[in-house]
Amino acid sequence: MNRVYNFAPGPSALPLPVLEKAAAELACYGDTGMSVMEMSHRSSMYLDIYRHAEALLREVMGVPEDYAVLFLPGGATAQFAAIPMNLMGEDGSADYIDSGNFAHGALVEAKKFGKVRVVASSREENYMRIPSWNEADFDPNAKYFHITTNNTIFGTRYTELPKTGKVPLAADMSSNILSERYNVSDFGVIYAGAQKNIGPAGMAIVIVRKDLLGQAQASTPKIYDWAKQAEAESMVNTPPTYTIYMAGLCLEWLKAQGGVEAIEKVNIEKAKLLYDFLDESKLFKGTADPAFRSRMNVTYVTGDKDRDADFVKQAAKAGLVNLKGHRLVGGIRASIYNAMPMEGVQALVSFMKEYEAHV
Amino acid sequence: MNRVYNFAPGPSALPLPVLEKAAAELACYGDTGMSVMEMSHRSSMYLDIYRHAEALLREVMGVPEDYAVLFLPGGATAQFAAIPMNLMGEDGSADYIDSGNFAHGALVEAKKFGKVRVVASSREENYMRIPSWNEADFDPNAKYFHITTNNTIFGTRYTELPKTGKVPLAADMSSNILSERYNVSDFGVIYAGAQKNIGPAGMAIVIVRKDLLGQAQASTPKIYDWAKQAEAESMVNTPPTYTIYMAGLCLEWLKAQGGVEAIEKVNIEKAKLLYDFLDESKLFKGTADPAFRSRMNVTYVTGDKDRDADFVKQAAKAGLVNLKGHRLVGGIRASIYNAMPMEGVQALVSFMKEYEAHV
Repeated sequence: MNRVYNFAPGPSALPLPVLEKAAAELACYGDTGMSVMEMSHRSSMYLDIYRHAEALLREVMGVPEDYAVLFLPGGATAQFAAIPMNLMGEDGSADYIDSGNFAHGALVEAKKFGKVRVVASSREENYMRIPSWNEADFDPNAKYFHITTNNTIFGTRYTELPKTGKVPLAADMSSNILSERYNVSDFGVIYAGAQKNIGPAGMAIVIVRKDLLGQAQASTPKIYDWAKQAEAESMVNTPPTYTIYMAGLCLEWLKAQGGVEAIEKVNIEKAKLLYDFLDESKLFKGTADPAFRSRMNVTYVTGDKDRDADFVKQAAKAGLVNLKGHRLVGGIRASIYNAMPMEGVQALVSFMKEYEAHV
Repeated sequence: MNRVYNFAPGPSALPLPVLEKAAAELACYGDTGMSVMEMSHRSSMYLDIYRHAEALLREVMGVPEDYAVLFLPGGATAQFAAIPMNLMGEDGSADYIDSGNFAHGALVEAKKFGKVRVVASSREENYMRIPSWNEADFDPNAKYFHITTNNTIFGTRYTELPKTGKVPLAADMSSNILSERYNVSDFGVIYAGAQKNIGPAGMAIVIVRKDLLGQAQASTPKIYDWAKQAEAESMVNTPPTYTIYMAGLCLEWLKAQGGVEAIEKVNIEKAKLLYDFLDESKLFKGTADPAFRSRMNVTYVTGDKDRDADFVKQAAKAGLVNLKGHRLVGGIRASIYNAMPMEGVQALVSFMKEYEAHV
């Protein structure tokens, strides 16, 4: 069976060399006589795997020493609750920018645990752009300020960060972490579900400035208490051990590609190829405001729902799968995360050209 | 490299045929052209995998139709919080039996979300037995009654269930689920971390009577709201897709062994072999009250810490690994879950005999 080009928004394509290495050592890891899945999370052989993954993440993202790195069960949605639990205090307030479906989900969840102010929103425009903001609207006493750096469903991306002064910036980077260089020190917290650029689903990475630890609400479940997890190397309970191992393999692969800086260049090229074609196409039209186009999720339509559906179907037959857009936008979405090679995007653009020529 | 016999308490040994099948199809599943890890959780190919795992679990455990089955991120420790969040109501009380370290952890966590009454405890006896109880002490108005059917660290097991009348029995079965037949209808909720008899770490299974759904506390994170998860086939957010797939493979394997009834017979034999030897040994001595001996975790000591440590070290050299007892009991612990073959226990007993003969 030939491997397809998988444009799924997450869980999504993983690098083939990673999958091949995982397959080769699945039943027996090195000279341990067992699978990584069978290792006690407290064993030295597993701790080596854990620490290797953490060290690689620190290296490729340039995470400073005064930040803790956590690997926690559940994806970003679990952290939608953990963010306020850990940062809001018992009586605090937080500012949110509502830039997409998950940004909205994050703020709805946060309302269970404290006061939420929405300081900018593009909800009324179906999130086709990152909303503009006015720093005068920001609460200087907010416990944190929350953004979603890339909006998976709508295909938009922040091109600059809001200046929040002393208020810690908390960023959901689920769909663009590791795809472009960020300065970790610009953030109080960075978190991301694993299933796009990190590894398999079922886990989130949390990178949190250490001085923000230790103020969790009294009713925080202990597995979501970042301070406890930081102290226990993410092992307050048994962590998703195999998922962490897979993340380590993906990080090794990323490092071998030249790290975040190198893959960012490839990602810019991949996105440019697709957007350039969209801009010249008579049939396909991008849905996101060009000023905020995502490099990871490219959303477009033909303007005819049946045509969109036919395109998605024909593309799948040609080995270009999972191109259906989210129901909130419709049309077509190509998710082109780190693991999608340039060849996959080239194949997609070729197919689009051919499709356009024949309708 | 030869495969070792892995006596780890969890994450623990998985059946070799399961690992081999997973390895063979890791990079490419069937004719899909992708890894299970890369599949969208909403795709029909993945939903087939999910529903197959759920159907197998229902079949081997005999789960009635009026129970929901959930596959949730995080292990049993996440459910320590979810149990009261979902069952306690805003102002309720629950009864707990404190029979071990995790039973204790469950009740400590529950106190964050409601009133907890400890109706029986063996904590003062270092949990060497399941405590006896007096039904007159049970609160007939409790929202639920919590037990831990097998105590991993101390090697004890309930031999009968407390009669709680109309109060739903909530059972943490992390370390003996699928190892012996239970009548699911005796419980309001059964939950278990995956990493012993179900599959890899990072997930819990929750089996809950449907009439108990829909009463979650207002501040329940949505991924731990069982009613929402039941409605969404455990996909309120992206679930740990690969872990669920692995659980399905383990359940297929279990079914091929003849199901829970058949493996229970093997488990009884395996435990008997080890306990019979402990009872006749002059060197080794079981630590749990014989009336409550676990079939999954066999705890024992020589009475000399250095001797215990030497035994564990020598056994590891002979390919019998992870036999060190938990620090709360000390000594030696052999965890012999479903995936540990009779040959592994025979090898351990042979090694113990030989060791005893030479000291």
